[in-house]
This record gives sequence, structure tokens and C-alpha cells, in this order.
Amino acid sequence: MAEPIPSILDDQARNTIGAALQATLVDLIDLSLEAKQAHWNLVGRQFRDVHEHLDELVDVARKYSDQVAERAAAVGVPPDGRTATVAGQSGIPAFNEGWVKDRDVIRQISESVDVAVRRIRPRIQETETADLVTQDLFIEISRQLEQTRWMWQAQNAGYQAEQPAR
Amino acid sequence: MAEPIPSILDDQARNTIGAALQATLVDLIDLSLEAKQAHWNLVGRQFRDVHEHLDELVDVARKYSDQVAERAAAVGVPPDGRTATVAGQSGIPAFNEGWVKDRDVIRQISESVDVAVRRIRPRIQETETADLVTQDLFIEISRQLEQTRWMWQAQNAGYQAEQPAR
Amino acid sequence: MAEPIPSILDDQARNTIGAALQATLVDLIDLSLEAKQAHWNLVGRQFRDVHEHLDELVDVARKYSDQVAERAAAVGVPPDGRTATVAGQSGIPAFNEGWVKDRDVIRQISESVDVAVRRIRPRIQETETADLVTQDLFIEISRQLEQTRWMWQAQNAGYQAEQPAR
Amino acid sequence: MAEPIPSILDDQARNTIGAALQATLVDLIDLSLEAKQAHWNLVGRQFRDVHEHLDELVDVARKYSDQVAERAAAVGVPPDGRTATVAGQSGIPAFNEGWVKDRDVIRQISESVDVAVRRIRPRIQETETADLVTQDLFIEISRQLEQTRWMWQAQNAGYQAEQPAR
Amino acid sequence: MAEPIPSILDDQARNTIGAALQATLVDLIDLSLEAKQAHWNLVGRQFRDVHEHLDELVDVARKYSDQVAERAAAVGVPPDGRTATVAGQSGIPAFNEGWVKDRDVIRQISESVDVAVRRIRPRIQETETADLVTQDLFIEISRQLEQTRWMWQAQNAGYQAEQPAR
Amino acid sequence: MAEPIPSILDDQARNTIGAALQATLVDLIDLSLEAKQAHWNLVGRQFRDVHEHLDELVDVARKYSDQVAERAAAVGVPPDGRTATVAGQSGIPAFNEGWVKDRDVIRQISESVDVAVRRIRPRIQETETADLVTQDLFIEISRQLEQTRWMWQAQNAGYQAEQPAR
Amino acid sequence: MAEPIPSILDDQARNTIGAALQATLVDLIDLSLEAKQAHWNLVGRQFRDVHEHLDELVDVARKYSDQVAERAAAVGVPPDGRTATVAGQSGIPAFNEGWVKDRDVIRQISESVDVAVRRIRPRIQETETADLVTQDLFIEISRQLEQTRWMWQAQNAGYQAEQPAR
Amino acid sequence: MAEPIPSILDDQARNTIGAALQATLVDLIDLSLEAKQAHWNLVGRQFRDVHEHLDELVDVARKYSDQVAERAAAVGVPPDGRTATVAGQSGIPAFNEGWVKDRDVIRQISESVDVAVRRIRPRIQETETADLVTQDLFIEISRQLEQTRWMWQAQNAGYQAEQPAR
Amino acid sequence: MAEPIPSILDDQARNTIGAALQATLVDLIDLSLEAKQAHWNLVGRQFRDVHEHLDELVDVARKYSDQVAERAAAVGVPPDGRTATVAGQSGIPAFNEGWVKDRDVIRQISESVDVAVRRIRPRIQETETADLVTQDLFIEISRQLEQTRWMWQAQNAGYQAEQPAR
Amino acid sequence: MAEPIPSILDDQARNTIGAALQATLVDLIDLSLEAKQAHWNLVGRQFRDVHEHLDELVDVARKYSDQVAERAAAVGVPPDGRTATVAGQSGIPAFNEGWVKDRDVIRQISESVDVAVRRIRPRIQETETADLVTQDLFIEISRQLEQTRWMWQAQNAGYQAEQPAR
Amino acid sequence: MAEPIPSILDDQARNTIGAALQATLVDLIDLSLEAKQAHWNLVGRQFRDVHEHLDELVDVARKYSDQVAERAAAVGVPPDGRTATVAGQSGIPAFNEGWVKDRDVIRQISESVDVAVRRIRPRIQETETADLVTQDLFIEISRQLEQTRWMWQAQNAGYQAEQPAR
Amino acid sequence: MAEPIPSILDDQARNTIGAALQATLVDLIDLSLEAKQAHWNLVGRQFRDVHEHLDELVDVARKYSDQVAERAAAVGVPPDGRTATVAGQSGIPAFNEGWVKDRDVIRQISESVDVAVRRIRPRIQETETADLVTQDLFIEISRQLEQTRWMWQAQNAGYQAEQPAR
Repeated sequence: MAEPIPSILDDQARNTIGAALQATLVDLIDLSLEAKQAHWNLVGRQFRDVHEHLDELVDVARKYSDQVAERAAAVGVPPDGRTATVAGQSGIPAFNEGWVKDRDVIRQISESVDVAVRRIRPRIQETETADLVTQDLFIEISRQLEQTRWMWQAQNAGYQAEQPAR
Repeated sequence: MAEPIPSILDDQARNTIGAALQATLVDLIDLSLEAKQAHWNLVGRQFRDVHEHLDELVDVARKYSDQVAERAAAVGVPPDGRTATVAGQSGIPAFNEGWVKDRDVIRQISESVDVAVRRIRPRIQETETADLVTQDLFIEISRQLEQTRWMWQAQNAGYQAEQPAR
Repeated sequence: MAEPIPSILDDQARNTIGAALQATLVDLIDLSLEAKQAHWNLVGRQFRDVHEHLDELVDVARKYSDQVAERAAAVGVPPDGRTATVAGQSGIPAFNEGWVKDRDVIRQISESVDVAVRRIRPRIQETETADLVTQDLFIEISRQLEQTRWMWQAQNAGYQAEQPAR
Repeated sequence: MAEPIPSILDDQARNTIGAALQATLVDLIDLSLEAKQAHWNLVGRQFRDVHEHLDELVDVARKYSDQVAERAAAVGVPPDGRTATVAGQSGIPAFNEGWVKDRDVIRQISESVDVAVRRIRPRIQETETADLVTQDLFIEISRQLEQTRWMWQAQNAGYQAEQPAR
Repeated sequence: MAEPIPSILDDQARNTIGAALQATLVDLIDLSLEAKQAHWNLVGRQFRDVHEHLDELVDVARKYSDQVAERAAAVGVPPDGRTATVAGQSGIPAFNEGWVKDRDVIRQISESVDVAVRRIRPRIQETETADLVTQDLFIEISRQLEQTRWMWQAQNAGYQAEQPAR
Repeated sequence: MAEPIPSILDDQARNTIGAALQATLVDLIDLSLEAKQAHWNLVGRQFRDVHEHLDELVDVARKYSDQVAERAAAVGVPPDGRTATVAGQSGIPAFNEGWVKDRDVIRQISESVDVAVRRIRPRIQETETADLVTQDLFIEISRQLEQTRWMWQAQNAGYQAEQPAR
Repeated sequence: MAEPIPSILDDQARNTIGAALQATLVDLIDLSLEAKQAHWNLVGRQFRDVHEHLDELVDVARKYSDQVAERAAAVGVPPDGRTATVAGQSGIPAFNEGWVKDRDVIRQISESVDVAVRRIRPRIQETETADLVTQDLFIEISRQLEQTRWMWQAQNAGYQAEQPAR
Repeated sequence: MAEPIPSILDDQARNTIGAALQATLVDLIDLSLEAKQAHWNLVGRQFRDVHEHLDELVDVARKYSDQVAERAAAVGVPPDGRTATVAGQSGIPAFNEGWVKDRDVIRQISESVDVAVRRIRPRIQETETADLVTQDLFIEISRQLEQTRWMWQAQNAGYQAEQPAR
Repeated sequence: MAEPIPSILDDQARNTIGAALQATLVDLIDLSLEAKQAHWNLVGRQFRDVHEHLDELVDVARKYSDQVAERAAAVGVPPDGRTATVAGQSGIPAFNEGWVKDRDVIRQISESVDVAVRRIRPRIQETETADLVTQDLFIEISRQLEQTRWMWQAQNAGYQAEQPAR
Repeated sequence: MAEPIPSILDDQARNTIGAALQATLVDLIDLSLEAKQAHWNLVGRQFRDVHEHLDELVDVARKYSDQVAERAAAVGVPPDGRTATVAGQSGIPAFNEGWVKDRDVIRQISESVDVAVRRIRPRIQETETADLVTQDLFIEISRQLEQTRWMWQAQNAGYQAEQPAR
Repeated sequence: MAEPIPSILDDQARNTIGAALQATLVDLIDLSLEAKQAHWNLVGRQFRDVHEHLDELVDVARKYSDQVAERAAAVGVPPDGRTATVAGQSGIPAFNEGWVKDRDVIRQISESVDVAVRRIRPRIQETETADLVTQDLFIEISRQLEQTRWMWQAQNAGYQAEQPAR
Repeated sequence: MAEPIPSILDDQARNTIGAALQATLVDLIDLSLEAKQAHWNLVGRQFRDVHEHLDELVDVARKYSDQVAERAAAVGVPPDGRTATVAGQSGIPAFNEGWVKDRDVIRQISESVDVAVRRIRPRIQETETADLVTQDLFIEISRQLEQTRWMWQAQNAGYQAEQPAR
């Protein structure tokens, strides 16, 4: 079926926007699965607090993966969020297998959120010429994810500070 | 880290239960991603109705993937719901790439839900000796998924009935 | 139209399950109409309390008649809850015509709930081999209806105890 | 028990009003059961949309059957909504047995709602002299049911228009 | 201050409507105070049930006293709901002083609601020529109050039936 | 497309009812746009209070324009609420361009609501023979709009009383 | 019926407390009726704002009249809130008949709230020896009513300040 | 672990306050368990009404046991609400074993609430010098429990009045 | 009345911004009226689904017409959303008179939303120099409307694909 | 009073079921009191997190103690949840007196939940023959409590892992 | 403690962004305290309306002070919102001491909001190169505050217009 | 403007009360700003838990600063909560600049709440003669703040206990 959703963008802009959105989509889906994996395999004295914090991250990642995919559809690009595609294209670091200690969960999740932030940020610039509307979505996602990043870093900082003492 | 969650089951029961839960977990996560994929790539005159119906399936698949994973943790088996694991172990049929017509979405989703149901059902028997508590979870999931299966089949039946006329 | 909903059960199991669900469906619909009849025709000093209690019974009976019918559809058996069918097949005792005193309402409803309980209970055994998922629904309905039965009996007991004094 | 609720109407008015309410009560209960029957036995590509629409009709029919019965009680006439009475007195056309296609459900329900409307409307005139308060209830029910009738007809019209093409 | 709200009715109609509304206003305010008095002074084994039922009557009486007064203002007649006016004009029977037994509360409130109903009903006829909009309000109040009346009578009937036995 | 919604009224009644509803529809839509215009262009020390009051009027006008249009459809008359039709047929006085002082907003809106009331009232009589159900809708709209009219007049009266002093 | 609620206070304390509560009860009921009277008969440019403010006063007066009456019952004194009693015992100044301008409403209500405050305050001292629990209720009512008093005075002050200029 | 919560009270005041709170804590916990016991073992024609009333008492007793215990902690005294302590220190009368008739439940609960009230009241005086903040909590509990006591007594009075007749 | 709202923009910027907002305002109001017209005049087998979808479009159009008008006021330009102005200035295509089939409704609404999107998009560029705050509002509206456009197009595509077959 | 609730089970089954439910009831009540005790006496850097987690355990224990007791009543066995009975029959380990450190609270509560789980699990087998409905309740409680147990163990594991370092 | 939150911005950008956010933070906190001060010290005939309007301003100022401070943290700059810092750095004009008339409150608050708007606006430009994400927050704050400014100005305009007449 | 709110207290009482309220007001506002400062600048492994706990303290401090200020107004004393006044008069200890570790945040906040408690407590005595109503507010604030103090101390105690080990 060819072009059921005629794009409001010209071909070049559509390609630029489509690529940026697709790359973000797989990162966010992968981040949501990783946060759930951590949510289930966590152990440690901070268990309940971190367990709940991870579900907030799941909510953020799910909400924006949905908006990113629907934005792709809106500009005429079919999004691809199938499991194999996500496994193949995601830039989020892999998560350890099995039970993971709270200290390590906090460090790994801080890093994954940091990677997500650093991969999405440049797309704000890349999409500026092609489509200000999509750019605005990247700005909104960055604002939310950078707030999330700060919170995990602030928590992680405590562990790093204590590490020599252990 | 060895055995932070000492199992209430003996080793054999734990292995049986752990395997059944892990297999269900990857199916349900994959089903949730597939339903989202369809939710975004759907076109056709039934668009809005099917678009919303798919989100109800996403909710069901997410809810039970969470319960299945937490049940695994509760019996001392760390669940694995990471993207690569899901991509490698899921038994749910792959979904087409790109835009998909409502008729085809309904058929594919009907089949995927049917496959999920047929894979989970035998686990009710398999777990009966090992752990009645986990069995009860499989019964609950089957009851919910079989209701979902009926709804998609009832909708699909309409398309099949019309097909010769087209 | 033949078999729009292919059953996940073999033919014998489907017949067993279909018959048990159909028999339960008509009982529950009839019970809901009887409770409404009592709700409207009640008189007596306990009026308001019993009037409200009857609506709680209506809610229970409606909720489970819906679940029973949808379970039948889910196993490929079209449920029959039409008025004439209910009138012909229900096993719930008939309710008196016209105004009914609270004492008599409580006694009649206690009996009708007791009958419903005694008719549904054996179906838990009958369906065990054919379909554990449907059995689980019968267990849930029994748990709810037996709680309801206790409450009406506890209230009825008060009247019986007072009866000689009247 | 004679006359626990002394009527505010004279005997003739009470008879007129009582008869009109009783006839409406059985129609509305029967309509609610028929809509549930359709809700469960429906198949076709419009499945989910019509499935939900039918539950809205169930809600309307239940709400007004309750108000009609309580109005009868309020004017001193005990309402009769027992299953056998409904089966014997209802004027709503019978519904087909077994699975029913969406096209046919929409046609049958449109007809049943139309019949209900055409049976209730004359009661507005019939009750004008006897009791303006009851008349007002018939006007309210007509307003609601005629809106419902329009929606089902508007949907049915689409099928009729397409019929030659099939 | 003369006529800040110019009436949409001619003078005669306004007088008719104003008088009917004023008479209803004082009855409803008095009924609300009487129901509160009973709510506070009630004793007896039905205490809690009747205590709550009385507050439902207070809600009904307050809701319609507000609507009646605002309807008067809307047709250009200043309503008078001051305590002394209510005490002087109300047609509701006086309530006993001090503690009152549930049996007696139910009988007195049944009578007061019955009086209110019998005083408001004729105003439906009286206002028909003058203003159909105000008539519609009287019909609505009657419908509500007559339902309330039935409930209290149904409860009262139980006491009367038992009385010889006591 | 001819007559998808067969009317329950005869031709003459349908014409009468259709005309009354169409005339009311355009008035109410126009009133809703005028109230929004005032909501945006208002200045004066009563700004916030009047700004919010206008949105309550918008809600009333929108709610009843919807009910009026759906009633027309229910009796088989397609309603016409398109902008050009409203601009051509509305009987509501035009509103001033640009910023408007609170005193003037209150006066103009009072007048517009008064005009709407005076145009709708006669339709209660005109529709009595043709359709009591539609008449009931006009009575309900009049009751609501006349309450609204009183509130704006009561506020306007304050300004008129002060005017000589200014 | 003698003493169904045996008091936890001795006779003297009960008399003191009963008198203080009864005097407060009639004031609060009267205040609630007066605020409603003002709510209905108000005219003036502040109409909507004052109209809503009066309903907040009604809520306060009703809430505490209920608590005061139930406290009386709790200490074994049957409260008397019947219309004639309120008319005879209330210390709240009478309210003008007919339409009242916002300026005058604000002044009169300010005075009535001020009177209520000044009558309740001494009861805090009077009840200290007899019952600290009832005293606590008087303190709570004073705190709420004195806040209310401030708001009406702050609004009234604006009118007084403007008065010479008018 | 010595003194993790340094008291804001001097030692003598802390002892006084701690003792009063501890004594109240065990009474309230015991009262909540007793009300639940009655809630489960009740039979009689008032079943549903009393069953619900008892759960309201449970809510009150649980709410204040929590506040009392946390107040103890706040003044540096560790509260003791363990089962054995409650069993050993409570002053609430024991409740009968097995099924209990509504008449007897109402009498026993009235007495238990009365005992609780009579034990808590003197603590208002005892704590006045030591800590006005804790005293205020005792006043609030007394106000709530004395209202509860009135309601149960008012219901109990009905049974006592009827007793000779039975 | 000259300039009650002194602009924060210089005159040229204010003119640019004012013109862009005014043009958007009339489009959005017209779109909301057109969607309501379609909501009422729709017929076809997709009736209920499209009927509800249209109300979601009404909500979007109303929400942003309000924000656009208030933004104009905030920069000192009085918005004009009066019926005649909307009829004269709107760029949205006119909608057919009378009943309209679902197929045609979906096509016409898709086109109207497409036109609205294509008219608003350039204003993002036009306002960039004059006022980034207003530009941000145009970006937000475009994001929402382009999502809406995709949904209607996805549904419309189904009809176009089927058209040859009919 | 003998047998107000005639059992649906034969005597032997009733005895088996009654004993299993009674043993569970006292454990759950004791667990709820122990969790509250910990909630109040907790100190340590995890204070707030554990304080809240304990209240979730209280909710679980209270919810199921209620269901267990009502199931006993439903099968005709009067449950005994009085304080002295709980103190005498509970199998939950005693909790330390006075302030308790978070580390110790987590360890003790983990153990108590573990004991509760290990005592309830066998009752699933014991009740299978006697009553599948009660068995289902034990399965549900086990599922919930075993999830709770995992969470406390996961938190506890963190402390144990750190212990050598301290 | 050095750099617990490593910035995603380079040093220069971080300094620019940090300074802009810090300056905005103190303005918004000061504005929230000033609005509260006015909320408490207001007198005049518009009392209630302005009193409530000020709390809406408090909500806006608090919401954005929180977002601004958290954005600073997110880019690695510790925000300073301590009282002394706010007192020293805020650019919002000081508010009068003691009671203030509504006319003067409206004028002063209009000016303070205007100042806040004029100080924040340039930061949109200043931050464009350094960080588009922070710029987007300044745009959002400006949009909200400029809407607030319009409302206060529209109200203020009324007073200014009337001033000569007074 | 002199005395718009005539006090219900004599001059001496008003001075006493006014001074106590003003001193409390500045403490509570300062405490709310300090808690927000900590909320933003916190780092450490307890980050999320303490971050949320601080917002609960902000809510408490804001709620009571509002009640304290409005009580001052109610007794005729204009409250002063302007930033400079708070900075000059507050007795709450200053908070560190920049990022602060969780351990230090918990210690500093514990101290600040402790200071607030110790400054407010004596005002309960000071105001007893002058105004029992204001005293009651101080008692309520103390009860709430002392509960808050306990929670922070209980958390702080954990850190102190661990300190030697670090």
C-alpha cells in the first residue's frame, strides 16, 4: 500500500525527520524494557524506593515512545517499534542478567538515561531546518529526560561518594 | 550475588515454574510491542476503533507481563525481559513492516493472540504439581486472553465472511 | 453462520462447558430480575435497608451473568439469555406477586440465593476435567454468592428467631 | 396485604396509569435483555463498536425500567417485572438465536427500539388526563429512546445503502 | 428599588406564579428543618437507617427550595424564605419536641411528606395557563417528592402492620 | 440520500418541529460565539468575575445547541449549524467590535439572553400540538435560560442604578 | 420517653452545655436561612461574586448547626431546631424584605456574622468548666466564623470607603 | 538504642503523657478488634445496617489508635500496640464468643464505647498541665467517640424500650 | 476605549502577530462548527465511531480557538470571533447541507483538517521574528492538528482503497 | 443460638475448613498489629520508606483477615478474632519492644511474612478435598503474601550483604 | 562536594543558562510571596474576587519557580532560592505594608507581573544559543505570565477608566 | 486606611496575638523556602525519598503560614509576609549554599523543624489569656510540626548511629 498518509513535508525533510524519530523510538522502547528489567531484578536496602522510581522511568519512556511513533506517522513515515528492530537498532547499553544490587542498578540506569539524553540532544539541531514541529517534540523529550537524568545522578552521586568507605 | 530470594519451592518445582514463567514473560512483552506497532501503522476505515482496541490489548499484555515477572522473582527466579531476550525467545508471530490495512491488522492480531493463548494453556497443566499459586496466575491470564481472543475473532469473522464479495 | 469463534476446547469439553455456563446464565439473569422485583414491591419497617441490599444483589447477579455469557462466547458457544429462554430454563424459585413484606422478602431471597448456590457448586466439579479456566470462574462466582447467601441468612435468622413472639 | 401505599390518584386514574407503566416496564426489561443477548452473540467487522453501543442501550433500558417500576409503586400499583411476566407481556420483537452478524444486529436492534418508541409514544396522550407527573416520565423516556433510535437508524442506513453493492 | 428584574410574564401570570412558588418555598424549607430535627432527636432500633434516610430528605428539600426561590426571582418575584416567614406560612405539620422514637418519626415524616405532596400537586394545574415553565418545575418536584413519599409509606406500613402485635 | 431517518411524526408536525428547532439552533450557536467574544474582549474592574460568568453561558448555549440539533435529527430533520447559516439566520443582536467595558458587556449580554428567551418561549406553544417531546425540550431550555437571564439582569441592575452617579 | 441517652456530664454541667448549644443552634440555622434569603434577593454589579460567597456562608452555617445539634444529643440534651423555635430564639438581626442591593447585602451580612461571632465567643468561657469537649467545638466554630467575618468586613470596608464619593 | 527521639517535654511530663497515650492506645486497638469480631459474628434482622455501622467504628478506632501511637513517638515514648500487650492492658470489656444477635451486639458495643469514653475523658484533665498538645488530641478523640456513643445508645434505647413487649 | 492592554510587542510585531492569530482564530472556530455539523448529520455503518471522533475534533478546535484568542488579547490585539466575522474570513472549505454519508464525512473532514494544517504551518515561520512566544503556540497547535490529520487520513485511506471495489 | 448459618459443607469438611480459616485469621490479625508496631517504633535512615512500606503490609493483612473471617461465616463457622484469642493462637514471631532500627525492622518483618507464608501454604493442600472455594482464597492470599515476602527479602538482602562492612 | 551533577552543557553555556535561571527563580519566588501578602492584606468591594485571583497567581509563580530550579539542577547548577538570596536579588517591586485597597492591589500586582514579564522575555533570546531546552522553558513561562498580565491589566484598566469620576 | 477590620479583641490582647502570629508567620514562610532549597540541592543515595519528604514539609509550612496570616487579619492585624520581612525576622537557621548531601540535609532540616517547634510551643501559653481561638491554632500547628519533627529525627537517628562506622 503506497502512501496512505501524504506527508506535509517535502521528501528530504521527511527523510531527515523520519530517521531522527525512528532512532529515538527504538531508544525509548529499549529504555522502557530495561527499566522494567531493573524493576524486577533489583535487590538491596533501597529496594522499594528504587523499585518505584524505575516505574516512573517506564512511564516516561512509554509516553514518549508513543508520541514519537505517532509523530512519525503524522509526517507520513511508518514507525518501526517491533522487538527485533528495537534489539537491532537501540543505542542504549545492555543491562546485566539476573539479580542486580541497588548500587549497580542506580549506576547502570544513570548511564542509560545519560546515553539516551546524549543521543536525543543532537536531533534538536538536526531537525530544526526540516520541521520545527518535530523539533519541539525533541525539546520536550529532552527537558523531561534531562530532569530524570539529574535525579538518577543525584542518587548515584551518593553511592560514589560512599564507595571508598566500603 | 547468590540467592538473595530463597525460594519457597524445592529446586525441581522452581525450575519448572521458572521456565513456564520466563516463556510467558517474553510472549507477553512481545505481544505488547506488536500491538503498539499495529496501533501506529494501521490504516483503514475501521482506524479509530481498532486503534483504541489495540491499546486495550497493550494494557492487558503489560499488566500480565509485570505480574508474571514479579511471580518469578517471588519464587526466587530472576526474570529476563530484556529486548534481546524477548527477540530471541518469543513465540509470537512476527508483524509486517510498514503501513498495514485494518483487515490485515485484525487478522494478524487475532492470530497472535491465538498463538499466545495456545502457548500459555498447557502451562496450566505443567505447573499444577509444582505450584498451585503460579498455576492460578496462568488460569487468570488464560481467562483474560481468551476473552480478548474471542473479541478479535468475532471482529475478524466479519472480514472473512465478506472476503469473497470483495 | 457456522463457527465464527473456533473453540480452544475439543467438542466434548465444549459441550460440557457450554451446558454448565448456559444453565448458570439463566439462573443469574432470573435472580437479577427477581431481586429487582423484590426491590420494587417491598414493604415493611426494614424497607430502606433491604431495598438497598437488593440492589447489591442485582449488581452481583448482573456482573456474573455478563462474565458467564462472555465465557461461553470465548469457548465458542453462543449464550442464550433471551427472556423466553430464561423463563423456560431458570431453576430459581418464583417470587410472589404484588407487595411483599420485608420478613417475606428476606426469606424468599435467602432461599433463592441458596438455590443458586446449590445449583452452581456442582458445576465446579463437573468442569474440572473439561476446562480449568471455566472452573475458576465457577469458583469465583460461588465465593461471591456464598458470601451473599451468608448475609441474607444472617438477616433471615433474626426474623425466624422472633417468629414465635409474633 | 391490602394497600400499604395509599394512592394519590383516584381509582380510575390509578388504573390508567398503572396499566401504562406496567406495559412500559415489561418492554424496557425485555429490551435490556435483548440488547445483552446481541452484545454477547454479535460477530462482524464492526464488532467492538456495536458491542459497546449495545451496552449503552442496556444502561438506558435498565435506568428507565427502574424509574417506571418505582413510579408505579409511588402511585400505589405494585409493578410486575418477573421473568415470566416479561416473557408473556412484552411487545418487543424476538431476537434470533445463536451468533448474529453485525449487519443483522443493527437492523434488529433498530427495529426493536423503533417498536419500543412507537408503543410508548401513545402513552403520553393516554396519561395526560390521569396524571401529568407520570406523563412527564413518558415524555422523558421518549426523548431518550428517540435519540437512541436515531443513532441506530443512522448506522443501519449505512448498511441498507450498501446492500445492493454486496 | 423598583423592578430590577422585569418579568417575562404579564402581571396576572406573575401573581399566580409568584404565589404558588412562595407557598412551595416555605413548605420545603420547613420540611428541611423538620427532617433535620428528626435526624437529631431520633431514638430506636432503626436509628442509623432512619438517621441517614432523613438526610436524604433534607437534601431533596434543600435542592428544590433553592430551585423554587430562584424560579421566583427569574419571573421577577422576590422570594421570601426568612425564618419568621417560614414559621408563619408553612403548611407542614409541627414536629414533636424532644426525643422521638423511630416508629413515631417514620409516621410523622410520612405524614409531613404526604402533606407536602398534596399541597404541591394542585399547583401543577393552577400554573398551567400562567407559565408552562414553572409548571414543569412543579411536576419535577412532585415526581421526586412522590417517590420519597412512597419510600416512607412503605417503611411506615411495616410498623402499622406490626402495631396490634405490640 | 433520501430519508435515512424516517420520522415518527407526520409531515406537518415534522415541518413545524423542524422549523422551531432550526431557529433555536442558530440562536444558541450565535449566543455561544457572542459570549466567547465578550469573554475575550472584556475590560473593567469586574473583569475576572464576568470573564468566568461568560464561560458558564458558553457552556449552557453549547449544551442546548447540541441537544436541539440532535432532537432535529431524531425527528428526521437534518439540522443546519454551519457558520454561514448561523450568520444568516440568527436573531441574536450583534456584539460590538474590539475591547468592551464590563458595564457594556453586562448590558449587551443581558439583552442578548433576553432576546433568546423571548424568541424561544413562543415555541413552547407552537410545538404543543405537533410534538410534546420537543415541547419538553423547549421548556427545559427556557427554564435554564430564564435563570441565566435573571442573573445577568440582577448584575446589570446594579450598573443602571449607579449610572446617574457617574 | 425518659433519658434514652444517659449523659456523661452531671446535671449542672449538662444544663450549662445544653443551653449554650441550643442558643448556638438557633443562631446558626437562622444565619443559614438569612444567607439563602440574601443569595436569592440580591441585585447589583457584584451579583455573581456575592451570590457565590453567600452559598459558602450557608455551607458553614449548615455544617456547624449539624455539629452543634449532634453534640447536644451526645451529652443527652435533645436539640430543638424547629422553625418556630428558631424564629423565637434566634439572636441574628432580621433581614430586609424583597430585592436588596449588593452594598446593603454586604453590610447586613457583615453585621449578622459579627453578631453571631459576638454571641458565640462568650460561650467558650462559659463552657470551660462544664465540658472541655464542647468548648473545643465552640473554639472551632469561632475560628471559622471569625475568618468568615473578616472576609465580609474586608469587602464591606470597600463600600464604606467609597460611600462619601457616591 | 537510647533516646533516638529527644523529647520536647521534661521527664515528668513525658511520663504522664506517655502513660495516658499508652493506655488509650491499647483501648482503641482492642475496640477495633472487638468491632470487627461483632461485624463477623452478627446475626439478626438488623444485620446489614449494624454490620456497616460496626465498620465505621473500626475506622474511627483505627484512625485514632494511629494518631495516639504517633503522638507518643513524637514526645519520645515508644508506643506498645503488640497483641499481647493489648490483651494484657486493655480496659474494654470482653466480647462473647460465637454468633451474637443484633440486639446483643448493639448492647455490648454501646457498653464498650461507653467504657472507652469514660476511660479517655479523665485523661483530658490529667494531661492539661503536662502537654496541651496531647490534651487537644484527647479532646478530639472524646468528641468523636462521644458522638459514636450517642448513636449506639440511640439505637440501643429502641431495643430496651421494646424488651418488655418481647 | 484606547489601548487598555499595552502591548509588550512593538507595533510592527504586534500587527504581524495579531494578523496571524486572527486568521487562525476564525479557522478554528469554523472548524469546530463544521465538525459539529458533521456530528449531527452523519449517517452510515461507521456512525457511532465517527460521531464520537468528531466530538474529539470539536474539543481540539475549541481549546485552541480559546488559546489563540487569549494570546491575541495578551499582546494587545482584540480578537474577533463573532459569527459574521468567522463566516467572512474563514479559509476552511464549506460543508455539504443535509445528511452526509460516513464515507463523505471522513473525506470532507480530512480535507478540512488538511487545509487548517496547511494554513497554520506557514505562520510558524511568519511569527518567528516577531514573537517566539506566539510561535510556540502555533507549533503546539500544528503538532496537535497534524496528529488529528493523520488519524482522519488513515481512516480515509481505507475508503479510498475500497472505492474501486464498490 | 444454634446454627443460624446452615453450612453448605458436610460436618467434616466444615471442621477442616473452619480450622484452616481460624488459624489464618489469627496470623493475619497479628501480622497487621505487628506491622503497625514496627511502623510506629522504627528509627533509621530508611525511616520514611520503610514506614510507608509497613502500612502497605497492614493493608494487605487487614484486607485478607476480613475475607478469611467472612469466608468462615459463609461456611457456617463463627470466626474468632478477639484480642485474647489472637494473642493465644497466633504463630507469628513476637516483635521487639521499644524503638527498633530499620535494619532490624526489615529483618524481623521479612521473617514474620516468611512464617505467615509457610503456615498458609500447606492449607492450600489441606482444603483441596473439603472445599475448592476456600482453597481458592488460600491461593489468592499466598500469591499476595509471597509477592510481599519477595519485596521485604529483596530489601533485607541489601542489609545482609553490607553487614560485614559495618 | 564537587560536581555531583556533570553538566550536559559546556562551561560557557552552563554559566549563561545558570545565570538566567537563577535570576528568574528569585523573581518568581518573590512574586509568589508578594501575591500572598496581597491576598492577606486586601480590602475593598472586590475583596473575594481579587483574593481568589491572587491565589491563582501564587500557584503559577510556585509552579514555575519549581521548574526553573529543577532545570538549573538538571544542567548542573545548584539553584539558590533561600529567603536572604531572594530578598537580595529579586527585581520585583516592593509591596506596601499593611492593609491595601483592592484598587491599589490590582495596580501594584499588574505592575509586578509586568516587571516579571519584561525581565524574563529577554532571557528567551539570551539562552537561544546556549540551550534550546532551557529556552523552551522561558517561552512557556512567558506565555503563562503574559496571559496572567493581560488579565490583571484588563481589570486594572477598569479602575483607571473610572478614576477621574471618583 | 485606618482599621478596616475592627478587632474582636481589646488592644492589649490584639497586640499579644498579633505579635505571636507575626513571629510564627515568618518562621513558617522561611521554613517553606528552606525545605524547597533542600529539595532542589539534595544529593545522595536517599535522594528520591528525601526529595519527596521535603515537599511534604513544604505543604505543611505553606498551609499553616496561610492560616496564621489569615488569623492575624481576622483579629484586625495586617500580617507581613514579604520577602524582606521574612529575611529580617525569621528565627529558622540558615541553610547551606550549593549541593548538600542527604545526610546533611536530614540533619539540617531536623534542626530547623526542631527550632520551629521550640519557638512556637511557648506561644501556646502566651496566647492563652488573650485569645483561646488563636491558642487553638498554635496547638494544632504544634501537633502537626511535632509529628513532622519526630519523622525527621527518626531518620536522622539512623545517620548518627552509623556515623562512627563511616
